[in-house]
Amino acid sequence: MENDQKYLTENREKFNNDLLDFISIPSIAALPEHSKDVQRAAAWLKERMLKAGIENVELMDTGGQPAVYGDWLHAGSDKPTVLIYGHYDVQPVDPLELWDIDPFKPIIKDNKIFGRGASDDKGSMFIPIVVFESIFKTSETFPFNIKFIFEGEEEVASPNMPEFVSKNVDKLTCDMIFSADGGQFSEDECELAVAYKGILGFDIEVTGPDTDKHSGIYGAAIANPVMALSQLIASMKNDNGEIAVEGFYDEVIPLTSKDKEEISRVPFDEKKFVEQTGAICLDGEIGYTPLERVSARPTIDLNGISGGYQGAGTKTVLPSRAFAKITCRLVADQKPKEILKKIEKHVEKHLPSGVTGKVIPLQDEGDPLLIPSDLNSMKLAKEVLKNIYGKDPYIIRVGGSIPILSAFYRFLGVYTTTFSFQLNDENWHAPNEFFRLSSFYKGQEAYRQLFHKIGSLSS
Amino acid sequence: MENDQKYLTENREKFNNDLLDFISIPSIAALPEHSKDVQRAAAWLKERMLKAGIENVELMDTGGQPAVYGDWLHAGSDKPTVLIYGHYDVQPVDPLELWDIDPFKPIIKDNKIFGRGASDDKGSMFIPIVVFESIFKTSETFPFNIKFIFEGEEEVASPNMPEFVSKNVDKLTCDMIFSADGGQFSEDECELAVAYKGILGFDIEVTGPDTDKHSGIYGAAIANPVMALSQLIASMKNDNGEIAVEGFYDEVIPLTSKDKEEISRVPFDEKKFVEQTGAICLDGEIGYTPLERVSARPTIDLNGISGGYQGAGTKTVLPSRAFAKITCRLVADQKPKEILKKIEKHVEKHLPSGVTGKVIPLQDEGDPLLIPSDLNSMKLAKEVLKNIYGKDPYIIRVGGSIPILSAFYRFLGVYTTTFSFQLNDENWHAPNEFFRLSSFYKGQEAYRQLFHKIGSLSS
Repeated sequence: MENDQKYLTENREKFNNDLLDFISIPSIAALPEHSKDVQRAAAWLKERMLKAGIENVELMDTGGQPAVYGDWLHAGSDKPTVLIYGHYDVQPVDPLELWDIDPFKPIIKDNKIFGRGASDDKGSMFIPIVVFESIFKTSETFPFNIKFIFEGEEEVASPNMPEFVSKNVDKLTCDMIFSADGGQFSEDECELAVAYKGILGFDIEVTGPDTDKHSGIYGAAIANPVMALSQLIASMKNDNGEIAVEGFYDEVIPLTSKDKEEISRVPFDEKKFVEQTGAICLDGEIGYTPLERVSARPTIDLNGISGGYQGAGTKTVLPSRAFAKITCRLVADQKPKEILKKIEKHVEKHLPSGVTGKVIPLQDEGDPLLIPSDLNSMKLAKEVLKNIYGKDPYIIRVGGSIPILSAFYRFLGVYTTTFSFQLNDENWHAPNEFFRLSSFYKGQEAYRQLFHKIGSLSS
Repeated sequence: MENDQKYLTENREKFNNDLLDFISIPSIAALPEHSKDVQRAAAWLKERMLKAGIENVELMDTGGQPAVYGDWLHAGSDKPTVLIYGHYDVQPVDPLELWDIDPFKPIIKDNKIFGRGASDDKGSMFIPIVVFESIFKTSETFPFNIKFIFEGEEEVASPNMPEFVSKNVDKLTCDMIFSADGGQFSEDECELAVAYKGILGFDIEVTGPDTDKHSGIYGAAIANPVMALSQLIASMKNDNGEIAVEGFYDEVIPLTSKDKEEISRVPFDEKKFVEQTGAICLDGEIGYTPLERVSARPTIDLNGISGGYQGAGTKTVLPSRAFAKITCRLVADQKPKEILKKIEKHVEKHLPSGVTGKVIPLQDEGDPLLIPSDLNSMKLAKEVLKNIYGKDPYIIRVGGSIPILSAFYRFLGVYTTTFSFQLNDENWHAPNEFFRLSSFYKGQEAYRQLFHKIGSLSS
């Protein structure tokens, strides 16, 4: 057994207790009354990083909750510089009555650590810290240059992080990025995420009369904005479930047969998927499997619609306006701003007569990411995962969008490889969140191997 | 000058003062805090009717505010029985700061009676009462059998009246009905309403997942109920602005060239009509003039729509459900229940895949009325109007629906002729409502002539 491995094994109880201590701070970013607790967790984290031997640790202003930064940069310029990402904030705990314990008095039971944030993401982000410590304390050096950035607003969608990253490019610049937030496929199956969808958010607003009018007096001879909006929305999809906005798919990189094969390798239980939603059946774009649709095809999602009278009974109005709230999930190489232009052109062309209409872009915008398979960080992660799990990882394309990863790519020019060992049955965002000790230990061994592999590279 | 005419002239000041007294009772049906005032107005009305010589006056239970009934039925069975309708409740007075007077301290100024309800409908419904009195007091008899029914919930859409009429058929049975609620075209032009649109109210609800779901996880492979509802709504109209529900127009009585000519005779300022709405232009069914659309063509009016997230910014949900609130304005001989069936069939046939959908009928339902031009009450009204105004009335088809008129027709089998002298510039439902004394007096003379004409008929 190597010294760092021994160090991790001998200090297990201590690290478990440190993690319990970390979890006991209710750093709920969504709730103003816990704002001070979030800052307390940041302060705790700073102290703990310093104890591990990480240098230049500081709480950085983001405009919201602080980001905690630290580094160790003495490996020399022939060694790579690696950025590790995670988040120290947690989800709210409601409904509290469904918890078996106080979510901020964490316990270890049945080889699991129970408590809010145990899995998402305090336990997971603590792993690279203790692994750094194990190598640094047993060798008095570290084999590459490493930077840590932990944010405190991930659970409220990282509203300040893109700007923060853009303003701190020099500080965060690096050759590789690993995210300690994410997850593995199951206890004995691993995964590697190679794609994340981008996002584009906008409203479409349609206006008819200046106020709601009497439908009996005006309804027959003045255009109805709810009807017009419905017609406009309907014009955006064809009978094959394809998006009928001209040029929408132009920049989409087609799935190769290898891509399709990789996707088909991923276990996907269609029946369970439908059951999870309560819908009556699958749906979507013809010509693609459900998992291809979810993971690799762009969408136009109607998130909401509103207009006119919405109460009980009838109110015979010709509504003044109606609006729809829409997000597009984009895939490489679609560009949010280009897609927005195409949507605007579509609205201009297909807006029914008698109303005015406009597209109102929302702040939400993120580039899709398709990570090249020959990316260094990806190759290393794959080797380690294969070594730990004894099998190749599933190659995953994520249907969701992770703004911080888009921001890293946009401002630092570096793709992020997700390297995390939490499991999605561990009640994230739900009562009785827990983190398997086996995952905690497996993650430590995986990061230990990863760090040694990185250390053996030359930049 | 005949005696009754003299009586009306001599008692003008007294009747004006009675009306001021009546108006001073704030009988606002919409506001619970004025419930007692509505009943006070009913009691005042009862006393005033008794004073006029009307018999069997009583406050009748409707389930809501009382209806005030009275009659005089001693003309013999060879004389017709006529029902007079009006309402003694009034609209709320907000915004109060825009009134020049206290709306319930009515005054006479510039030959106008100012106060809430002066025109709609206390002044108008008071006319047939004083005209009855003038004939009865000067001749000690009355030339036909007359019944009065005044309701106290017209301004809240007469929710209890259809059932009330259905339960009191024997009491209300008659040969003709005149409504003292309505209006004339202008100070020197008269009108006769020969059609009212019917109404059918329903919601369409579309359901996808059992709760709002993450759009990134499920949005691409589970049908979106907002999109599905939009597609369904869009399928209900074609590019010509026609309703694309199969069989929707089957029962519509086509407009004859005479009908079209009558409609084209009615002054209609298209520019002003559009300006009143603030919309950018006219719209509607191709092949019909704007006034034909408004007055004589059935519609499907989207009154409201709702589904998913409607707040600021983006929320990336796949909504669970969406619903639209819809009313159809119907024309003769469309039947609300038949149209509902056709809508249901349409929804069944055109509902997009992957969602469930249903049509939820609402209480609002009223038959369209198309009054035969040879109807006795209509012919008499026309003669009187021509005599008073010196010209033929405009033949009007009303785009709105009046539930009480549908109920009279449905349960009593009698069409209602509107015979009323208020004018629509008299700030109905608005601040500074007024009633022209000239209209008050003109209405008295018109009703006096009408009553004599009816009295000269044999049943």
